[in-house]
Amino acid sequence: QRARDAGIRIGVLPTGTTNTITDVPGVLVGHNTLIQGDSVRTGVTAILPHGGNLFQQKVPASIFVGNGFGKLAGVTQVQELGNIESPILLTNTLNVATAMEAGVDYTLQQAGNEKVQSVNIIVGETNDGYLNDIRGRHVKKEHVRQAITSAKSGPVAEGAVGAGTGTVCFGWKGGIGTASRKLPAKLGGYTVGVLVQSNFGGVLQVDGVPIGEALGKYYLSDVLNNPVDGSCMIVVATNAPLDSRNLERLAKRAFMGLAKTGGIASNGSGDYVIAFSADTSVRVPHQSTNAKQTVSLLNNDDMSPLFMAAIEATEEAIINSLFMAVTTTGKEGHKVDALPREEVLRILRSYKRIK
Amino acid sequence: QRARDAGIRIGVLPTGTTNTITDVPGVLVGHNTLIQGDSVRTGVTAILPHGGNLFQQKVPASIFVGNGFGKLAGVTQVQELGNIESPILLTNTLNVATAMEAGVDYTLQQAGNEKVQSVNIIVGETNDGYLNDIRGRHVKKEHVRQAITSAKSGPVAEGAVGAGTGTVCFGWKGGIGTASRKLPAKLGGYTVGVLVQSNFGGVLQVDGVPIGEALGKYYLSDVLNNPVDGSCMIVVATNAPLDSRNLERLAKRAFMGLAKTGGIASNGSGDYVIAFSADTSVRVPHQSTNAKQTVSLLNNDDMSPLFMAAIEATEEAIINSLFMAVTTTGKEGHKVDALPREEVLRILRSYKRIK
Amino acid sequence: QRARDAGIRIGVLPTGTTNTITDVPGVLVGHNTLIQGDSVRTGVTAILPHGGNLFQQKVPASIFVGNGFGKLAGVTQVQELGNIESPILLTNTLNVATAMEAGVDYTLQQAGNEKVQSVNIIVGETNDGYLNDIRGRHVKKEHVRQAITSAKSGPVAEGAVGAGTGTVCFGWKGGIGTASRKLPAKLGGYTVGVLVQSNFGGVLQVDGVPIGEALGKYYLSDVLNNPVDGSCMIVVATNAPLDSRNLERLAKRAFMGLAKTGGIASNGSGDYVIAFSADTSVRVPHQSTNAKQTVSLLNNDDMSPLFMAAIEATEEAIINSLFMAVTTTGKEGHKVDALPREEVLRILRSYKRIK
Amino acid sequence: QRARDAGIRIGVLPTGTTNTITDVPGVLVGHNTLIQGDSVRTGVTAILPHGGNLFQQKVPASIFVGNGFGKLAGVTQVQELGNIESPILLTNTLNVATAMEAGVDYTLQQAGNEKVQSVNIIVGETNDGYLNDIRGRHVKKEHVRQAITSAKSGPVAEGAVGAGTGTVCFGWKGGIGTASRKLPAKLGGYTVGVLVQSNFGGVLQVDGVPIGEALGKYYLSDVLNNPVDGSCMIVVATNAPLDSRNLERLAKRAFMGLAKTGGIASNGSGDYVIAFSADTSVRVPHQSTNAKQTVSLLNNDDMSPLFMAAIEATEEAIINSLFMAVTTTGKEGHKVDALPREEVLRILRSYKRIK
Repeated sequence: QRARDAGIRIGVLPTGTTNTITDVPGVLVGHNTLIQGDSVRTGVTAILPHGGNLFQQKVPASIFVGNGFGKLAGVTQVQELGNIESPILLTNTLNVATAMEAGVDYTLQQAGNEKVQSVNIIVGETNDGYLNDIRGRHVKKEHVRQAITSAKSGPVAEGAVGAGTGTVCFGWKGGIGTASRKLPAKLGGYTVGVLVQSNFGGVLQVDGVPIGEALGKYYLSDVLNNPVDGSCMIVVATNAPLDSRNLERLAKRAFMGLAKTGGIASNGSGDYVIAFSADTSVRVPHQSTNAKQTVSLLNNDDMSPLFMAAIEATEEAIINSLFMAVTTTGKEGHKVDALPREEVLRILRSYKRIK
Repeated sequence: QRARDAGIRIGVLPTGTTNTITDVPGVLVGHNTLIQGDSVRTGVTAILPHGGNLFQQKVPASIFVGNGFGKLAGVTQVQELGNIESPILLTNTLNVATAMEAGVDYTLQQAGNEKVQSVNIIVGETNDGYLNDIRGRHVKKEHVRQAITSAKSGPVAEGAVGAGTGTVCFGWKGGIGTASRKLPAKLGGYTVGVLVQSNFGGVLQVDGVPIGEALGKYYLSDVLNNPVDGSCMIVVATNAPLDSRNLERLAKRAFMGLAKTGGIASNGSGDYVIAFSADTSVRVPHQSTNAKQTVSLLNNDDMSPLFMAAIEATEEAIINSLFMAVTTTGKEGHKVDALPREEVLRILRSYKRIK
Repeated sequence: QRARDAGIRIGVLPTGTTNTITDVPGVLVGHNTLIQGDSVRTGVTAILPHGGNLFQQKVPASIFVGNGFGKLAGVTQVQELGNIESPILLTNTLNVATAMEAGVDYTLQQAGNEKVQSVNIIVGETNDGYLNDIRGRHVKKEHVRQAITSAKSGPVAEGAVGAGTGTVCFGWKGGIGTASRKLPAKLGGYTVGVLVQSNFGGVLQVDGVPIGEALGKYYLSDVLNNPVDGSCMIVVATNAPLDSRNLERLAKRAFMGLAKTGGIASNGSGDYVIAFSADTSVRVPHQSTNAKQTVSLLNNDDMSPLFMAAIEATEEAIINSLFMAVTTTGKEGHKVDALPREEVLRILRSYKRIK
Repeated sequence: QRARDAGIRIGVLPTGTTNTITDVPGVLVGHNTLIQGDSVRTGVTAILPHGGNLFQQKVPASIFVGNGFGKLAGVTQVQELGNIESPILLTNTLNVATAMEAGVDYTLQQAGNEKVQSVNIIVGETNDGYLNDIRGRHVKKEHVRQAITSAKSGPVAEGAVGAGTGTVCFGWKGGIGTASRKLPAKLGGYTVGVLVQSNFGGVLQVDGVPIGEALGKYYLSDVLNNPVDGSCMIVVATNAPLDSRNLERLAKRAFMGLAKTGGIASNGSGDYVIAFSADTSVRVPHQSTNAKQTVSLLNNDDMSPLFMAAIEATEEAIINSLFMAVTTTGKEGHKVDALPREEVLRILRSYKRIK
């Protein structure tokens, strides 16, 4: 059960249709979940800004580094050129190379890319080494490819799936979460969708309620079974026509949403936000017969509602990742409990946040 | 009455002695409040990393730009050289030049600086033009000097004083706020102190409770009397021995604290964090007979507790700025109400956040 | 006599009509030169991206920080919003506040700006304290205003004028220099114009010829009468339709032009590049009834010729600043010789670089 | 024959003993050159900051992005934490994943790293797709490992070797080049060593002499057989005790050295500088029983000689890459000539730059 289905209402803006990142038209998500034997608990999640040839039709993008203790691949080209030309792949820390290799394969083999000799693959990661035999690097290229090719619109599986199979968040089982916001028509009617791979710590708050404290499980409480370090990958999609500069600003707001869940971006947490515009009118063709491209871009002055949407959707996506994850046992018998939903809801009721 | 005195307990870490930025040993704060006639509602706040000659004994520092719609002076030298060599001055947007000029005066005239030909003055600002005749630029050099020379340790005046005299926050009267956190001895025993000049908007939350919504006053609610734009200047001091790189990381966490109050860093908000170490062992002498400086710096791995301290202290400092500000009438009869404390406390009680 | 008139031909691209920054249509330059008594040798130079109301019609812009030991005002807003809304003012280090104040005056008083309550003034500086009584802060607001209001298109005075009155470059008298490049029509026909305020050191090369070594005057040669430190402000204008991201890239190339003169961006040198597009089609209106702006922007793939133009024009502008400056005596009898042009030309001939 | 052996003397500072990056004590370099059949012309070059366990004993480091059109892996962690914990690997664009994977293998397998679950591998690349069947991704993990394990001090092979096997520079065969500078004892006696993988374009200058123009082969000359795009990886090592902030500044100066060869950092060129300190006193232990580390760091004021050293060594390293490379024929019969050394030397003599 997702947070909203339990009555939790984060923020003041309405959600998109399915309250997922795929509410942004064109965006596709695919998972490959890898659970093998006692100690393989990992996977891959692929986010495709659109279903066509991403290399030939790039999307405006930017990346905000919340805390750079991570191995995110592809950063500098996105910042320099302002666009993304590949699927966005999420996996575990030590399989970044595998995902990159699979991303290169995918691009080189795609029809129309026969002469491509350079492609910038975006791979994000968090460290699932508490539950997963991460040194074994069990993600293989075919798993990545499967995540890419199975990507689809519509509902998105959450919790202990894909790249979230083995992650831990606030000491509870984390994973994949998603949410969206849709602005009122008079503010442009744009959608902002967020997907997270949650694997970090702090002092959990659910819609402002001090759940971590109430449950006695939080950073520096001395009872936390898992260290505060971890990471959080955040992907933000929108159909607002934004250039990379305003996408970087939007990305920065998603980091604020993480803060609202009680995350502290601890030293060892690799916290990154990858933001792109899926609006078809601002796509960047790989080659063009025209030296100029004509685009209609949203003004700076009209960014604030999108900023609030990104904050809200990120907060809710993280909470969803916790609500949807299941108790998982993995490497060396390590067990990470799911967030005790009933108890959390009881606390939320006692704090008058839900009925 | 400050938030904590009303029973509000933000975060899990203990405060410093006075729960102000001056809990960091050596740090001084001075205000000059300018209330003249019907339409002058502005002022200056000076934060001195130490009471000696700042130019001759610089402090390690960094600046994080949350949202750069502002006129903060002195940024690039701090980032390049990693230190601050002047008082940190806060005032209104159109008086940055006045404050800078006064800062130059102050430095040039200080004993020992007779040959100084270059000094980097740090001036932050927010726009108090709703209550204050900002175009009149009523802050004069003597006001700035007075704020500097009156700076002292101990209790810090909060609310509608100094650079906070005319600011507005979440639609209520904002201003100066401060708070601190002191780490347990086993985590180093360091203090983190924060001072804010609050002048921004969003959807106010007090310790997680949706006050903005409960009071029907928040961004995009269509009843807000003041636009969301504004700004927030945040100054973070610590006696942990940090270099500029880790101070930049600390500064970034203060921005997370702002997020927890419901701030959204709207397009027009100039949100900046200036962080410095007041630890005497890491001071940077202007001139040295030795080409090298020996310092004992905190490791990356030991930063996380400081990060949490910066988040908590910033959140509380902002709430304090609201709790301590008084209803103010200014330019063109504009009136900004103080946060209705009793009602807020009543709401907090109904949400079980205070007794 | 400018470098090119002496037969020096830097680079391979053709110059614009007057080989100055004003070759970029719309760009205006004004100087105010301040020579008073024995020790006032300073001034102001104003560069206006266009002659209209800059606040109401902003220009896309970016700033690259080569070495941030400087007091450049206005940086963060340009980076955040991607535009400049004021004249670009250059002066001495300790008069940045004066120039900022005058810039605010100018903007507030301009017709149409009656309600403006916030403006971001760009002020660059270099330290002319060897020749100028810089602590006296002799630049007054009226000098700044005069530089702004006298700004014009057409030929630009170079050498020891305006903000270059008291600067020193490679141990010789530096000052203001300018140059331009015009791309062939098949590459878009765009113009790139550069203006510099030169005040830095290193090992002077003129079109690749080791003049500094030949004259025995260079950094670490132990005979240099002036320290290597100083600064260089570089302003780059173009009529290519660029957004702030590609303008930042263009700015970075100007820094490469500085390198080609033998500059080393020493620790104490504040080296900044401010780049803007003066193309009328990409201006950013302060207010708009439309939430979106339609622009035709040059593609990334078409930037390289502009990059080369910026490198060449910057190199030549710096050399022009040296060729056009005259021997100057100032504070405390300090004397800085003009570059010995005849000897330099003799050396260039001996190295077969000119006839 | 290296440039200096031909009588070319770039800059004014003396070189280190072998005029290579390995003049910096502790630094090791290894190549794996891959020439197979008609169309495999690629390889790997590994630079090890020291010969021990790099993960357990990290080195202070920083990365400067000259032009981010590239796939450099490992950037954000270096910037966040200020250190490098792996070999620095250079290869071709599409084999970054392979090199990363091999780097992970190497680290995980190294004695003492049995529990390591996260490591940040630095992989730089340039695109050798003109001469090499880059889509075939012929570099395998064993080639990378061999480059790492064969790394040694002393003379460094240059030209068409290792990662430079298939690169092209200014239209001529480029490749690996290296050089060093040693400061006089009174300036600290520090060494700065540089290694480049040259694969970029522009208008070639050799020690200031317009070789590109003299040979009629340069960007926009319409006769260049190879596009201007490419890339340049630059690695800068020093034994000066620097922290990451000053290493970033040092890295930026290497980019100035690239400018002096006539490089223009064209749109498609991925130009990066990776700088580290190999000084044993500033190494960063992976784990420590002490929360603080005591280091003696060079002051800002003493950086300028190092800056000049980095500029000179980079310029010379690039020229060495050209002087040492041999004519290479590869994919689809593409042939890239070696720089015509005799003709170049003749031109240099005619320009009086050598005897």
